[in-house]
Amino acid sequence: MAKNLQEMRERVCAANKSLPEHGLVKFTWGNVSEVCRELGRIVIKPSGVDYDLLTPDNMVVTDLDGNVVEGDLNPSSDLPTHVELYKVWPEVGGIVHTHSTEAVGWAQAGRDIPFYGTTHADYFYGPVPCARSLTKAEVDGAYEQETGSVILEEFSKRGLDPMAVPGIVVRNHGPFAWGKTPEQAVYHSVVLEEVAKMNRLTEQINPRVEPAPTYIMDKHYLRKHGPNAYYGQKGDAH
Amino acid sequence: MAKNLQEMRERVCAANKSLPEHGLVKFTWGNVSEVCRELGRIVIKPSGVDYDLLTPDNMVVTDLDGNVVEGDLNPSSDLPTHVELYKVWPEVGGIVHTHSTEAVGWAQAGRDIPFYGTTHADYFYGPVPCARSLTKAEVDGAYEQETGSVILEEFSKRGLDPMAVPGIVVRNHGPFAWGKTPEQAVYHSVVLEEVAKMNRLTEQINPRVEPAPTYIMDKHYLRKHGPNAYYGQKGDAH
Amino acid sequence: MAKNLQEMRERVCAANKSLPEHGLVKFTWGNVSEVCRELGRIVIKPSGVDYDLLTPDNMVVTDLDGNVVEGDLNPSSDLPTHVELYKVWPEVGGIVHTHSTEAVGWAQAGRDIPFYGTTHADYFYGPVPCARSLTKAEVDGAYEQETGSVILEEFSKRGLDPMAVPGIVVRNHGPFAWGKTPEQAVYHSVVLEEVAKMNRLTEQINPRVEPAPTYIMDKHYLRKHGPNAYYGQKGDAH
Amino acid sequence: MAKNLQEMRERVCAANKSLPEHGLVKFTWGNVSEVCRELGRIVIKPSGVDYDLLTPDNMVVTDLDGNVVEGDLNPSSDLPTHVELYKVWPEVGGIVHTHSTEAVGWAQAGRDIPFYGTTHADYFYGPVPCARSLTKAEVDGAYEQETGSVILEEFSKRGLDPMAVPGIVVRNHGPFAWGKTPEQAVYHSVVLEEVAKMNRLTEQINPRVEPAPTYIMDKHYLRKHGPNAYYGQKGDAH
Repeated sequence: MAKNLQEMRERVCAANKSLPEHGLVKFTWGNVSEVCRELGRIVIKPSGVDYDLLTPDNMVVTDLDGNVVEGDLNPSSDLPTHVELYKVWPEVGGIVHTHSTEAVGWAQAGRDIPFYGTTHADYFYGPVPCARSLTKAEVDGAYEQETGSVILEEFSKRGLDPMAVPGIVVRNHGPFAWGKTPEQAVYHSVVLEEVAKMNRLTEQINPRVEPAPTYIMDKHYLRKHGPNAYYGQKGDAH
Repeated sequence: MAKNLQEMRERVCAANKSLPEHGLVKFTWGNVSEVCRELGRIVIKPSGVDYDLLTPDNMVVTDLDGNVVEGDLNPSSDLPTHVELYKVWPEVGGIVHTHSTEAVGWAQAGRDIPFYGTTHADYFYGPVPCARSLTKAEVDGAYEQETGSVILEEFSKRGLDPMAVPGIVVRNHGPFAWGKTPEQAVYHSVVLEEVAKMNRLTEQINPRVEPAPTYIMDKHYLRKHGPNAYYGQKGDAH
Repeated sequence: MAKNLQEMRERVCAANKSLPEHGLVKFTWGNVSEVCRELGRIVIKPSGVDYDLLTPDNMVVTDLDGNVVEGDLNPSSDLPTHVELYKVWPEVGGIVHTHSTEAVGWAQAGRDIPFYGTTHADYFYGPVPCARSLTKAEVDGAYEQETGSVILEEFSKRGLDPMAVPGIVVRNHGPFAWGKTPEQAVYHSVVLEEVAKMNRLTEQINPRVEPAPTYIMDKHYLRKHGPNAYYGQKGDAH
Repeated sequence: MAKNLQEMRERVCAANKSLPEHGLVKFTWGNVSEVCRELGRIVIKPSGVDYDLLTPDNMVVTDLDGNVVEGDLNPSSDLPTHVELYKVWPEVGGIVHTHSTEAVGWAQAGRDIPFYGTTHADYFYGPVPCARSLTKAEVDGAYEQETGSVILEEFSKRGLDPMAVPGIVVRNHGPFAWGKTPEQAVYHSVVLEEVAKMNRLTEQINPRVEPAPTYIMDKHYLRKHGPNAYYGQKGDAH
């Protein structure tokens, strides 16, 4: 069923404004979008505009290829990355990109964020992957679109389900996270940042730490997701 | 003497709301409960509900086995852990579980939090133990109840008094803390988190640091606890 | 075209007040100035005055050599450093000096802040240099002026463009940053501090990390700067 | 000239309340006092009372030996440490004790805080010393008084001037700082905590870092202190 475009504007505006409240961004360094495939529309933050100045009305509306159809402002320069992911992942309804500090640490270090505990397993079913750096050709070409392609390549290569692993760090760049809704995508961004910090501390405290047992991952993830979930109240998104 | 159930609801609500104020939780990642054995009642946070939305009225009331007797919402999914500890530790009146960042660091690292100084000794008489990970059988069985059993096993194996060591980290999971009251349990959670951070810094500054002398532990703990305590004002909980 | 002196006072006052809001300073440990070469005037924070007490009226106005021409208060003791940079770098319109924690970490460590990712490349085209410590003769002489000379020497020796690398850390001291305006100089100070933190985490997570590819630096910097910039809205400073 | 006792109460109350605002304490873990030798009076925080509940009226007043002469509440249990320092250091007018996180890290690590840069030299003329742990006999005896003696022993052994090095960390315990006034003592506590953090980061970034040159220490300290000071405005405490 098609969504209401005005409600999309409101949700995307609110989700973008929540980024600084969660401590995920400085200045204008992050953006959230939402897609409605039935409407053929993506709503995204305008580029370089302060979160304080965002209103539902100044959100940018594009078609599914990222062509602006409503709005006087330029869309976030990362829009082509969002477009690329929306095209291939039909269950993803919202995407977030930030430069949150701890997640960037892993991105710049070029490492997957290992699975060390239940905080991680409650939302990510397996390590948070680190995608490779883009090649010179990719960077010199359609850079932001290629960023999306590299993320898709990583998921495809590893056989990952984007709904079970709702985020990634791109090497030398930073984190992307997603979910069924923009709000859920923001939630996963917060989890990714927090787990990035917890795991850095973990390795500092015990440099020889091993990943946690897989059966703990199964239990915690499935406690919150799928038909047998029993965390929260009936009908919750989580 | 039996407690007043309405006052229990109020205390448990307030203690839960204090978790984000102390920086111990993100989203809904923590819960506080209180027991009254004379009333045969436990009061606990509902599962997955934002702290902002908690009121004394929407706290969940259960019997001493964790069966809901009042309330329309599901209790915290960690309730069986609380139940298990209340059954075996008669002096414990309140329990807190969180995923606070620094304590999770030690839990994921699989290490006891060593005794390095007086901040620790003021509230914990000895290292904060790290309980083992649950086995696959335990995880696949009554998971949350088994978490309680593993905590009890650790205290029993080491011969620890839960009133002298009012907290633990469970490997690959996170911290639990307790006290005579929910408020005191929250207090101990804050101490545990702060000591977890201080001790991480300590090892970073001096990787070959040794535990502090035992007589300092004796002095500081007994300065605040027991018949010869002289910290604070007469009649204080601390 | 000459600037309006009253507007300079207002901008410099506001930029100084923004330092504690960005978490860059404690007490009075930072200062911002602005120059207008046409007017022959520099406006700078008074020395040792709390940010709360700053008003456009109590800003100190000097000539281009740093001689006070308006104001009853002493100018920031770092004024001669600002003067030195303004004399040699004609495009620089605002300068900031702070003791922000993470940047001081690199300054005290005596290391350049390496180029590890896109957050860095969006504002700094190459590593943030670490200037050498001052010699005893320099310290015993015109200390603050010599600090400026050492910064200029470092840029000259490396052939760096101050508009492409808008900041530095001075060994055993701390960071300086600049821009076309005082506001932009503050912005660059925030970037420098954030990148200093990100890069510390990066090396902690992967001690053998290598700098990011140069072509990523080119892309991100030029996406925001120069004639082909496409980030933000038309006419933005960034 | 004798001070006004009511003004002492007001200053000590305000200084204590400023500790949580500066992020130096959790709960009731810190205390500030002021002495007036002419009046023969010390004013100090009551023990274990929340900072929110402090008023000038509930400050505790003692004589120079620490005997309570006004007030219904117990004085801070650390009072005998303050008394010991006031007796030997005539220029010290205010003392602060906290368990601030970064300073405790060095205390627990048992290391002096090295001199790495100008932030440090602006207020501490040389490394911040780490005093030895107390012996069992000292701990079992007049513990808090002996803490003062150990601090005095450290300064005496090293030939340090408490006005030039206005703080210390006591091994396995935490920081003490002082100054001419309670306000200045709090200021020095903030500096000590900040330098403790900066220096931890410095060693993380460059594990082989060497202390900064002594002539930088001379310059920065004397720029703010003594007859040739030129930082700030005429008549400033700093």
